[in-house]
Amino acid sequence: MAGTFDLVIRGGTVATASDEFRADIGIRDGRVVALAADLPRGGEEIDATGKLVLPGGVDAHCHFDQPTSDGSRMADDFATGPLSAAFGGTTTVIPFACQQKGHSLREAVRDYHERARGKSMIDYAFHLIVTDPTEQVLGQELPALIRDGYTSFKIYTTYDDLKLNDRQIIEVLALARREGALTMIHAENSDVIAWLTEALERAGDTAPRFHATARPAIAEREATHRAISLAEVVDVPILVVHVSGGEAMQQIAAARHKGLRVFAETCPQYLFLTADDLDLDGFEGAKHICSPPPRDTASQQSVWRGLQDGTFQVFSSDHAPFRYEDLAGKKVAGDKASFAHVPNGIPGVETRLPLLFSEGVVKGRISLRRFVELTSTNPARLYGLMPRKGTIAIGSDADIAIWDPARQVTITNDLLHHNVDYTPYEGRQVTGWPEIVLSRGEVVIRGGDCLGKAGRGAFLQCATPDTLQ
Amino acid sequence: MAGTFDLVIRGGTVATASDEFRADIGIRDGRVVALAADLPRGGEEIDATGKLVLPGGVDAHCHFDQPTSDGSRMADDFATGPLSAAFGGTTTVIPFACQQKGHSLREAVRDYHERARGKSMIDYAFHLIVTDPTEQVLGQELPALIRDGYTSFKIYTTYDDLKLNDRQIIEVLALARREGALTMIHAENSDVIAWLTEALERAGDTAPRFHATARPAIAEREATHRAISLAEVVDVPILVVHVSGGEAMQQIAAARHKGLRVFAETCPQYLFLTADDLDLDGFEGAKHICSPPPRDTASQQSVWRGLQDGTFQVFSSDHAPFRYEDLAGKKVAGDKASFAHVPNGIPGVETRLPLLFSEGVVKGRISLRRFVELTSTNPARLYGLMPRKGTIAIGSDADIAIWDPARQVTITNDLLHHNVDYTPYEGRQVTGWPEIVLSRGEVVIRGGDCLGKAGRGAFLQCATPDTLQ
Amino acid sequence: MAGTFDLVIRGGTVATASDEFRADIGIRDGRVVALAADLPRGGEEIDATGKLVLPGGVDAHCHFDQPTSDGSRMADDFATGPLSAAFGGTTTVIPFACQQKGHSLREAVRDYHERARGKSMIDYAFHLIVTDPTEQVLGQELPALIRDGYTSFKIYTTYDDLKLNDRQIIEVLALARREGALTMIHAENSDVIAWLTEALERAGDTAPRFHATARPAIAEREATHRAISLAEVVDVPILVVHVSGGEAMQQIAAARHKGLRVFAETCPQYLFLTADDLDLDGFEGAKHICSPPPRDTASQQSVWRGLQDGTFQVFSSDHAPFRYEDLAGKKVAGDKASFAHVPNGIPGVETRLPLLFSEGVVKGRISLRRFVELTSTNPARLYGLMPRKGTIAIGSDADIAIWDPARQVTITNDLLHHNVDYTPYEGRQVTGWPEIVLSRGEVVIRGGDCLGKAGRGAFLQCATPDTLQ
Amino acid sequence: MAGTFDLVIRGGTVATASDEFRADIGIRDGRVVALAADLPRGGEEIDATGKLVLPGGVDAHCHFDQPTSDGSRMADDFATGPLSAAFGGTTTVIPFACQQKGHSLREAVRDYHERARGKSMIDYAFHLIVTDPTEQVLGQELPALIRDGYTSFKIYTTYDDLKLNDRQIIEVLALARREGALTMIHAENSDVIAWLTEALERAGDTAPRFHATARPAIAEREATHRAISLAEVVDVPILVVHVSGGEAMQQIAAARHKGLRVFAETCPQYLFLTADDLDLDGFEGAKHICSPPPRDTASQQSVWRGLQDGTFQVFSSDHAPFRYEDLAGKKVAGDKASFAHVPNGIPGVETRLPLLFSEGVVKGRISLRRFVELTSTNPARLYGLMPRKGTIAIGSDADIAIWDPARQVTITNDLLHHNVDYTPYEGRQVTGWPEIVLSRGEVVIRGGDCLGKAGRGAFLQCATPDTLQ
Repeated sequence: MAGTFDLVIRGGTVATASDEFRADIGIRDGRVVALAADLPRGGEEIDATGKLVLPGGVDAHCHFDQPTSDGSRMADDFATGPLSAAFGGTTTVIPFACQQKGHSLREAVRDYHERARGKSMIDYAFHLIVTDPTEQVLGQELPALIRDGYTSFKIYTTYDDLKLNDRQIIEVLALARREGALTMIHAENSDVIAWLTEALERAGDTAPRFHATARPAIAEREATHRAISLAEVVDVPILVVHVSGGEAMQQIAAARHKGLRVFAETCPQYLFLTADDLDLDGFEGAKHICSPPPRDTASQQSVWRGLQDGTFQVFSSDHAPFRYEDLAGKKVAGDKASFAHVPNGIPGVETRLPLLFSEGVVKGRISLRRFVELTSTNPARLYGLMPRKGTIAIGSDADIAIWDPARQVTITNDLLHHNVDYTPYEGRQVTGWPEIVLSRGEVVIRGGDCLGKAGRGAFLQCATPDTLQ
Repeated sequence: MAGTFDLVIRGGTVATASDEFRADIGIRDGRVVALAADLPRGGEEIDATGKLVLPGGVDAHCHFDQPTSDGSRMADDFATGPLSAAFGGTTTVIPFACQQKGHSLREAVRDYHERARGKSMIDYAFHLIVTDPTEQVLGQELPALIRDGYTSFKIYTTYDDLKLNDRQIIEVLALARREGALTMIHAENSDVIAWLTEALERAGDTAPRFHATARPAIAEREATHRAISLAEVVDVPILVVHVSGGEAMQQIAAARHKGLRVFAETCPQYLFLTADDLDLDGFEGAKHICSPPPRDTASQQSVWRGLQDGTFQVFSSDHAPFRYEDLAGKKVAGDKASFAHVPNGIPGVETRLPLLFSEGVVKGRISLRRFVELTSTNPARLYGLMPRKGTIAIGSDADIAIWDPARQVTITNDLLHHNVDYTPYEGRQVTGWPEIVLSRGEVVIRGGDCLGKAGRGAFLQCATPDTLQ
Repeated sequence: MAGTFDLVIRGGTVATASDEFRADIGIRDGRVVALAADLPRGGEEIDATGKLVLPGGVDAHCHFDQPTSDGSRMADDFATGPLSAAFGGTTTVIPFACQQKGHSLREAVRDYHERARGKSMIDYAFHLIVTDPTEQVLGQELPALIRDGYTSFKIYTTYDDLKLNDRQIIEVLALARREGALTMIHAENSDVIAWLTEALERAGDTAPRFHATARPAIAEREATHRAISLAEVVDVPILVVHVSGGEAMQQIAAARHKGLRVFAETCPQYLFLTADDLDLDGFEGAKHICSPPPRDTASQQSVWRGLQDGTFQVFSSDHAPFRYEDLAGKKVAGDKASFAHVPNGIPGVETRLPLLFSEGVVKGRISLRRFVELTSTNPARLYGLMPRKGTIAIGSDADIAIWDPARQVTITNDLLHHNVDYTPYEGRQVTGWPEIVLSRGEVVIRGGDCLGKAGRGAFLQCATPDTLQ
Repeated sequence: MAGTFDLVIRGGTVATASDEFRADIGIRDGRVVALAADLPRGGEEIDATGKLVLPGGVDAHCHFDQPTSDGSRMADDFATGPLSAAFGGTTTVIPFACQQKGHSLREAVRDYHERARGKSMIDYAFHLIVTDPTEQVLGQELPALIRDGYTSFKIYTTYDDLKLNDRQIIEVLALARREGALTMIHAENSDVIAWLTEALERAGDTAPRFHATARPAIAEREATHRAISLAEVVDVPILVVHVSGGEAMQQIAAARHKGLRVFAETCPQYLFLTADDLDLDGFEGAKHICSPPPRDTASQQSVWRGLQDGTFQVFSSDHAPFRYEDLAGKKVAGDKASFAHVPNGIPGVETRLPLLFSEGVVKGRISLRRFVELTSTNPARLYGLMPRKGTIAIGSDADIAIWDPARQVTITNDLLHHNVDYTPYEGRQVTGWPEIVLSRGEVVIRGGDCLGKAGRGAFLQCATPDTLQ
């Protein structure tokens, strides 16, 4: 096999979702073609001695270049978003192609492909967001799109421009069942939120911290139970995204114990922030406004337990980037400043993996294999990207992050590469950092430098989601 | 790398607990040293095209050559037991070295090593059974034995010659915590069983089917809750063995959701038998007497769900072999025949994997990776045998079973290699069968023939159990 | 006190929700004014020796003279409905004044008063049904009506002409909180039902038994969880009506254990019918169409347990009378017969108490005091009619039913006094029957004869519901 | 009826477990013979205008004159204990006749009757404590004693001189089932406590606060689950005494929802104390040592919810009186002072009702009827004293407490009448106080004075416990 490898990663400790072993990795044509105790010299060599060689992260929940309700767009596009992801050890992103009400889904897909063209440094697939499940959409567009490799879609129970009613949810779920697609659900009761928001605004309680008051855990639990019930009626798997704490988790765990294929995702904000982070001086708390909101320390403990006990299968960023200066410019001036006008979302695509690695693996809360499973293997599997992505195995793309498990880093926004003017995790110390990142065998990040070209990332068609337990 | 492999398994589909991929496997000195898309020719070659190449099974719960209460010994010794295991695709067994009350544990270990010497065809480790946790045992023998590689031990809450009281259980758990060992618990309330048994015998209800009456699910649930509680007080992981159904499972799942490291095992008899199988003509039901007893079809469904939802981590045989002719000879004659005199246990070391493969994987109840995880990877990890056993990865022992996933087999006792005169699964059809089995790179089973020598199996020292989630 | 009683009921065993004692009851001006071991002779005397003297039943869920969707009205009006109730031992009914969408509530109240005028033989109050919670209704009508003695209202999550959306439910609950009223909720997910109904009809599955298929327990559980969640957000008590089985009950019990004031009602159909009763020859199953539908025997057991363990506080009839001949005439002819066109509801105001007495008290499932509590005291208390109704105590109305606890009766429709041409309980044997019924001290039923005049019943203003546990 | 009453209580508001009404009460020969709107003048008269007239409390859990492990006896005997009870509005006490291991139960009963003779001012029954269930005890003594009116017995899972093993518990439960008696269970895992205690003592952690550490909620939950399981096997009702918080409560509630007749009691210490009360200067924390120990504020909230939601049926004092000066004299001197030598128990027979009235009824946590039910009616019913005790109804004993619901009292030990030198509730303010107390129609307490004679209290034979829900 001498001379047959474009690249050999030598001497590292390779980890998958089940194994951890010392091996050399032989890469050819962008794929892993050999794992061995001792490989002959490759065209190129990386010395990974003393390092962890992990599957690149798959961030299955991030928003790039999406429009916001006021007509502007999110701060990261398909250049900066994937770049930031890569710096954080992620090699595949699955952002959303979001249908606008009154428009076709196919049109949305075309539009997002246009936006992504020539920009992304790493590979990407698309989830669809279905906001207008017309007969045309359900009868023709979606089935065709699913066959074209868009096999997962997100639906909302909240936000006026996005939400579906129960009947629409059922119709989407029924289609997912017929076509073998996976439905992701943002579960919060819209009417509860609207009623509380109006009451808070009437009372003048408009500071950012009231965002959390307006979106209580009960609203999330209710919509979670409802989503599960509708999926149970239709008899189809679902995945509940960005679950924030124990109330919704109990519903999910109970459903799983009944034998339902209910999957769940959580995000860094539910481990590392609380509602207190929305209560900063002035309007600064707006930097931490996302939905569902971070809750309390008991919820954080619940979420850790859910990562341990299997309630959660996926750990994503829900990266939804807005610049605080834009917000401050537009909204904070004058009396009309209100949490209700702040776009919901925080950045996190670059910090997702280091935060979980440091607080989870290094601190002994979860195993390394569970880290790989939550951040890479499971999202790849559930969204139809296995075996190409999500693991280090023969035939898989050589999407690899080489971590220094001992490196100490203080997170600051200066360090990060997104197009956002803050990070919620400013000043936080972490242990462990991805030093070298490969995408299809090409070193795209090394030592803090970007070596990959914009636009080198390929669009990935997703196969049927693998939801077998 | 040409010429460097003693053996290459070529062209099969390799599966681990997380991955499934087509690869050649290069083996040298009994270990897996290369996984690659295309390996050079090895000293020997096995064509695995169209086959599944799986880690050999790890049967973490089987009894060989153990004494029974009437002074005889179980029907399989360290020759026939491991041989039968190997024919069923299992390459590692972890039987028990059972302390006798009043005797030392070290003595038991010596005795079982003596019994195993020169006999086992495959590798084996020992769990200890602690029946007499004296100060000597807890203070000196066990700590030393743990350091010597006996890192798990089973304790009983039932059987007069085996059971510990709560205080003894706590002391054993506390020692397990101090020394980093894993405690397995047979959980059934002894006094409930004794009381019911006496009442049944007084009433003349002595047929085998009353064994199930005498050991109700409540007795199992109670002892399971108690074991969990004691482990919670001590703050130490435990593993509840041979869980039979929903009542105990609920206790285990609740504990896991509280963050406790409570692991659980189930066995084929709880998927494929019910209490009705104890109700056969004459005394034939005695063939299916094991403890806890198989229950009902609802319990079977619960157990399947537990294999799917992660309540169970381990699927073992609890092979406890007795010949029906011995039983019939000794007990059935005369009026004194009673379920209460039938030794508890059924054979299953050879049928464990084919049954679960056929009914689980082939029928779509569980994924192939879950099959591998439950039957090989998890037991190896939990009992400190990873990475040597339990996976196909670089550096691991080449303990491999090559399955024909389509082969149809009708299970009959004639087909099996244990020293028992019946199988509880006589006549059952399965799809999928392990055709070639390798132990440390040596083909020991091929096409129904045994090629390995008795005694070639090595004793395995177990490392600290890996109980991190 | 001699000569001071209009009537003395002598020598019976009096039971309340907490006590059972032998006493004479002295009645004056329609009220109970004395309970004593031995009272002087009254103006009239009733010998109750060997009988049970119980508070007359309060049927808190019955529909009289309500319009149906096809423009006709229910079969019982305010004459036959209360008459039938009285024959069954009930002395207070709380039917509904149902708002029509687009109309005012006040108007509905006026209309129902008009319909009731001069007809009811026993006392009655009204629940309101709020179908159109406009600003006018919420801001003015309802607060005024609550002050006028209409302190409870029912809302629906299903039926197109009745249902409210979540926001409307929240607004109604918030008003109930502000004004101290009690909200009753019919909890079934409307969209689930519509989707299943359409699917069934498309498949030609239109027989009555598919009514049960179209309204699964999941739909009820979902809406129950949602109703509880909305009430939890608003922080107000609610009462879930006609709960059919374990799935919804678990939600209710869990809420109660969290400290929420969630009350629940069940009905005879969930104890004595199952979905199989909808599967009769021809279209006869339509006689048993009600919503939620009766389920299975396991559900019946759950409902019994809920009556025992306190999950249920109220046992009502949900009497919703339709004549089968009307139905058969209109709908069954031709191809368009479908369960979906059958008005939902079955009769039961007269059989409610004898059925529960016989199967509950006589068969030892519940105590006599629990019977009184479920059928009389609790509904009176929860709907603001205590202490006037719901008990036998000094100062309370002398609404009393004197039961022969040993009398054997075979229920047939001939025996009953409603204006319906069938009873779901035809042929069922019961033990125990109310022989004499008094309303405000006047014997209105005796020995199968009606002695009371139509129209003698008074309208009852309800006080603030007593929801303190 | 003029002239026929020995006593008339006039104009008060009478409350039972279900009703609240204004009435005069006519008493003759110690019994309630009339309740009426207006009674003729009695031989004596009590003006209860503006007062609450409640059934006297039934304290079903109090220890008088019991020996302690060091040979001394509890501080209250059958004179001071019942006297103190009466001052607190209690008119019936059910202390224990405690078998000593190796002795007969009959002997214990005789002994306690001897001790009670001529002393108690109010009526009393006995629970038995079974510590040595020999064949003689189970086969002869207990059945005979049950027939003689000792129909309930307490068993222990902890304390070396009291505890039974599982087999003994089963045998006692089986007897209870055969004979229709009710078994009360003190549920704490003895071995857990012993192990923790020894570890704490070894570590020098002997201050009173370590009593709480040594008896964790897990130990209580475990024994509670075990007791329930054993009762489920035997199929017999049980009552779990002095439940301290949510962990055990969940077991009880789950059992009730399964249809088991599992009853539960809690006590003032679990509402008004926490483990922090064991952490006082010096050894003073010993004043609050009882078992199970008070826990934390979350537990207090759970216990309140359990009083509301029906998890608890009985609220008793568990009065177990020890003088601190005795303790201080004997134990605190020297190095050997340890929580483990402090007798377990605190006084509370006099404060039980005022504390619950003030914090429960006055503060709106529970209704007045629930107060009556928990403190009087339910214990009377469950222990076979209804209808004689536990209510105000025709024929019942005139055991009545007349409360001033508005009276403000500061609890101090000076105010109390037990023979203990402290109260755990020193300085606590309460609203509501029993001003006049009648026992069988005789005023025994009025305005802070005792008018009853020692020894006037009668022994009560208990009928079969009424455990029907």
